[in-house]
Amino acid sequence: MSRVYNFSAGPATLPEEVLAQVRDEMMDWQGSGMSVMEMSHRGDAFVSIADAATRDLRELLNVPDDYAVLFLQGGATGQFAGIPLNLCADKAQADYVITGSWGKKAHKEAAKYIKSSVAASTAEQGFQTLPAVADWQLDGDAAYLHYTPNETIEGVEFSDIPDVGDVPLVADMSSNFLSRPVDVSRYGLIYAGAQKNVGPAGVTIVIVRKDLIGNPRADTPMFLDYQQQAEADSMLNTPPCFAWYVAGLTFQWLKRQGGLEGMAEINARKAGKLYDFIDASGFYSNPVEPGCRSRMNVPFLLADDEANKAFLTEAEAAGLTTLKGHRSVGGMRASIYNAMPEAGVDKLIDFMKDFEQRKG
Amino acid sequence: MSRVYNFSAGPATLPEEVLAQVRDEMMDWQGSGMSVMEMSHRGDAFVSIADAATRDLRELLNVPDDYAVLFLQGGATGQFAGIPLNLCADKAQADYVITGSWGKKAHKEAAKYIKSSVAASTAEQGFQTLPAVADWQLDGDAAYLHYTPNETIEGVEFSDIPDVGDVPLVADMSSNFLSRPVDVSRYGLIYAGAQKNVGPAGVTIVIVRKDLIGNPRADTPMFLDYQQQAEADSMLNTPPCFAWYVAGLTFQWLKRQGGLEGMAEINARKAGKLYDFIDASGFYSNPVEPGCRSRMNVPFLLADDEANKAFLTEAEAAGLTTLKGHRSVGGMRASIYNAMPEAGVDKLIDFMKDFEQRKG
Repeated sequence: MSRVYNFSAGPATLPEEVLAQVRDEMMDWQGSGMSVMEMSHRGDAFVSIADAATRDLRELLNVPDDYAVLFLQGGATGQFAGIPLNLCADKAQADYVITGSWGKKAHKEAAKYIKSSVAASTAEQGFQTLPAVADWQLDGDAAYLHYTPNETIEGVEFSDIPDVGDVPLVADMSSNFLSRPVDVSRYGLIYAGAQKNVGPAGVTIVIVRKDLIGNPRADTPMFLDYQQQAEADSMLNTPPCFAWYVAGLTFQWLKRQGGLEGMAEINARKAGKLYDFIDASGFYSNPVEPGCRSRMNVPFLLADDEANKAFLTEAEAAGLTTLKGHRSVGGMRASIYNAMPEAGVDKLIDFMKDFEQRKG
Repeated sequence: MSRVYNFSAGPATLPEEVLAQVRDEMMDWQGSGMSVMEMSHRGDAFVSIADAATRDLRELLNVPDDYAVLFLQGGATGQFAGIPLNLCADKAQADYVITGSWGKKAHKEAAKYIKSSVAASTAEQGFQTLPAVADWQLDGDAAYLHYTPNETIEGVEFSDIPDVGDVPLVADMSSNFLSRPVDVSRYGLIYAGAQKNVGPAGVTIVIVRKDLIGNPRADTPMFLDYQQQAEADSMLNTPPCFAWYVAGLTFQWLKRQGGLEGMAEINARKAGKLYDFIDASGFYSNPVEPGCRSRMNVPFLLADDEANKAFLTEAEAAGLTTLKGHRSVGGMRASIYNAMPEAGVDKLIDFMKDFEQRKG
């Protein structure tokens, strides 16, 4: 077996230790005689797995007691609808800050249900910067303000939590969830698809202040009803059990890395050395304003677009995969989530150096 | 490792060969250097997995070309909403035939969106029989007629496809999907949560006649929009890739069992011998009218309710697990889906015989 360094933006690389445990427990989870995939979600074995995962996630993020933690289906895209459906029965209006492709999609989907106003957007700047919070056009009476702390495609990331007064702050953290400590109490709702920093695609985590839920719109599909799911411990209907289990193993792995403080340090180091190398290079460039750069997704361009194909082919041959940039941005993108080892980033930089010398 | 015979109603036992392949490919899928969990859903590797699964499913069920095959999130419960959302923009009315707990839930959820009429119900008969199709109160102008070919909890199953004229027939096949050949062309839409006969919970298959979709209600969440998902090969947003992959391995396994004809024969034999034993016994009983009995879910009662606990404990010790009946029915339930080996049913019968001799 020869594992590659996989820079996919998502589904993304997972900790090798997690995968090895999944493999070892595949036919017989801890003497139960069955795979986790085969367990009744109502049985003691799976309930213990689900409870442990929930407890570990609460511990990692220090989630206050007045927040529900849900493991749902539908992806972040599902929550683009789920959020207005759950939070807007009374106030059919919310503010959206658009700093990239995902924020744009979230805003568009919400417009099916509510007046979704644009409080700020960097579309005109090609999403290569972030809007100053002081300039956001906030509606004090909005049901919530939605933003995307990290934009996967454009590689921009907020380093601080914006202060938006009393309006509940809603964050799509899909691509930087659990990559650093976060003060959950500053948020009304945090959500994240699992397939970047947590586990396999198919489970979506929603952390929501309990006083915000329980009054969904009448047309909310039952399985997206946060209150009903909270009351049922996310088992109103059969949950994505296996993905939940893998997420739990990732939470345990994170604790072994020193929790989110430990992880944040490693992530800062990984991103720092990659950006430093790119900035010092005459061949590679990153278009994002330095203070707004993502520590998770690093897009970069080659000086010569003609070299893109050779770069990808040679990187692949060197065991560095899935580096092609999103078509809307072009060039390359290295997603360096929690599970990307620092050695993978080092190897990427070495390869980039060597490629530059040969082609630059 | 000692695998048990797991009679869970779902998530349920999977073919041992499938699990072994999943285990063997966990760290490195076919030389890709990564787990299927880690693959970009847009990459060649995963697209080949998804395409093969779709092709094999089409082949197994002989799905006509004018039907779309979708792999979605949300479970069957998600489709309880998805179906009226997608099929009822013009006609806000549909008929429901209720023959058990799941049909009841489907009907209730649909009522959020449309006038969901009850065309027939066996609630008064305790869901222990099936209503004669001739007596169904059909509305010729309904958007569709929904029924549940197999009710997991009560253990009733239609052996034939009801003839409902021109109204599109919609079937929740979650618990008997792929257990026998089905003439898909008789249906407008078939759907099934994976966690009984297909794979892990978290992927739901929808097979729908293409002319029925493309006109969803305005409040349909994007990820539940069948037309958009069909156009995007179920990848409008990140699909539940890993569950889809496991489903594909199960389809291959089914082909090795002789396809659905082969499987139907095995299933008829498994169910036949279990019902025969129960009927011949003075200690066990099945409350369902013989012609309406499920070949997938076999509920049975012990003559003495006091013996339930001992039955479960001793069965568990014998490697026969998850036999407890649903609380609404009581007693026991043996779910004997495709992946339950005939040897498991034989062992269960032997255990039941022995238990009866000792306690009966």
